[in-house]
Amino acid sequence: MPNFDDILAAAERLAPWVHRTPIATCSTLDRLAGRQLFFKCEHLQKIGAFKFRGAMNAMLQLPEEAAARGVVTHSSGNHAQALALAARLRGVQATIVMPANSAAVKRRAVIDYGARVVDCAPNLAARESTTAQIQAETGATLIPPYDHPQIIAGQGTAALELLEQVPDLDAVIAPVGGGGLMAGTCLAVRGRAPQVKLFGAEPLGANDAARSFAAGKFVPQTDPHTIADGLRTSLGELTWPILRDHLEEVITAGEEEIIAAMRLAWERAKLLIEPSSAVPLAALLGEVFRQKPGLRRIGIILSGGNVDLAALPFK
Amino acid sequence: MPNFDDILAAAERLAPWVHRTPIATCSTLDRLAGRQLFFKCEHLQKIGAFKFRGAMNAMLQLPEEAAARGVVTHSSGNHAQALALAARLRGVQATIVMPANSAAVKRRAVIDYGARVVDCAPNLAARESTTAQIQAETGATLIPPYDHPQIIAGQGTAALELLEQVPDLDAVIAPVGGGGLMAGTCLAVRGRAPQVKLFGAEPLGANDAARSFAAGKFVPQTDPHTIADGLRTSLGELTWPILRDHLEEVITAGEEEIIAAMRLAWERAKLLIEPSSAVPLAALLGEVFRQKPGLRRIGIILSGGNVDLAALPFK
Repeated sequence: MPNFDDILAAAERLAPWVHRTPIATCSTLDRLAGRQLFFKCEHLQKIGAFKFRGAMNAMLQLPEEAAARGVVTHSSGNHAQALALAARLRGVQATIVMPANSAAVKRRAVIDYGARVVDCAPNLAARESTTAQIQAETGATLIPPYDHPQIIAGQGTAALELLEQVPDLDAVIAPVGGGGLMAGTCLAVRGRAPQVKLFGAEPLGANDAARSFAAGKFVPQTDPHTIADGLRTSLGELTWPILRDHLEEVITAGEEEIIAAMRLAWERAKLLIEPSSAVPLAALLGEVFRQKPGLRRIGIILSGGNVDLAALPFK
Repeated sequence: MPNFDDILAAAERLAPWVHRTPIATCSTLDRLAGRQLFFKCEHLQKIGAFKFRGAMNAMLQLPEEAAARGVVTHSSGNHAQALALAARLRGVQATIVMPANSAAVKRRAVIDYGARVVDCAPNLAARESTTAQIQAETGATLIPPYDHPQIIAGQGTAALELLEQVPDLDAVIAPVGGGGLMAGTCLAVRGRAPQVKLFGAEPLGANDAARSFAAGKFVPQTDPHTIADGLRTSLGELTWPILRDHLEEVITAGEEEIIAAMRLAWERAKLLIEPSSAVPLAALLGEVFRQKPGLRRIGIILSGGNVDLAALPFK
């Protein structure tokens, strides 16, 4: 289990490598939310998402002999780009297993960062078996996308910066997919500012965290339906207990609310965020959250900005 | 004529009112440009553009008795929103004369900021006569969009911040429309870091500044054709001599280059900028500029992010 010291160590390790991303504010969004919102701009992080923090943290701790054999992961999303860039920066060969139907722009970005792309059928079994085959052939180390102590510790450094950049927050909210960002955020906030409340935000169409909370035990995500493509995965064995122990609540948002929040972020705040990042804003703007008393200043972690400009959800 | 002291005074006056916007960097864009680029993110300024700096600077210097009679301007662009918000913050009535064919989203934003909108025919003569009529009726003070010492001084505060945020720049580049931002930038850079070279960037389809440089005298813009809607205006009587005296050169970019640069900024750097703001990046990525020696570190002022999401130029 990762802890607060791991996050502090990750922050020191990552300092020369990551962008210390800025905080954005927008009075129009404050008015709509009825509170002061502070956006931690991880869409301006390297590769356009917080995922670089975790991947780089793992990469920097890889022993020399393992590094020589390379790294591998399966991802069609931001973790693919994150690992590709992190590996290049350490001079390590990365292999990314991607479903053959992945967006061309994502494939190109991974290749641009110098990684090798191996196609597989678009299902989890094919992804895992192809990855295992590459591990067996090359001895490459698997760097998983979220359920790993070094990944969680890396992701937590975003919240650590947020707390340094914005004093006196009443709450911090982040999106929940596999839970790596949210778990790291929980550990960072509990360690640095234990009085700050923690909320997760999830699409209604991929609400495994909300259902896990309701059931009091881990409920896997089976059939996700949401535009928020970064949040379709299940929580992990490491991330679920951390969320369970530290979150006040998981707030959900419907698809129309997510798209409307994304549009508001683009139009009014000029924040080029992807749908997954609009979920916490959508949650804050919903009636359920607006009724909550005593939360004046809220930090929101904007997780990423990797969207396909040829297929935007705006009409 | 405004001078460096006016910019220092504007910076002090504006400090409680403007966002100190962040600097963004992107290694992919650095690689494409062959230099280190530092983007001053004025699209994250209030109202989504640098224009708020100048409008607020003018508003804060308006005498009480003039403030009671209100302010007026004609604009279909960012100056309209800038003046509307600046007036609201000082509790002054603003009237914005807008061509009847202005985009609904811009009209709505102006009204949201509490200004009164008066329609006119979509030509300069109608804009000016309608504005003059409102001045005569109400005694309102005209706040022009760029050719005014207080506006120029306000716009110069963005470059002043840039120089504080990024040491050892070799050059600063900004877009040139009416020249208010560029003139303020020239004065700020000459006053604070006189060794830094200054460049202007202009669409080929609205190249009055480049033609003025070539002719050695002010050549007005007559028939602009460019997607960069903030850069279609002529230079002014105040802005032209400042640009003439301080700019190394005005670099131009074609329409396809502007759209390609905007797309790169969105896709690779997650900077939600409007076409006018992509012009300096397009200029830097062009062969003419790429050949220039000795410019390692370049500051780019990203002027704004007000785009119509229903009419993006991406295919």
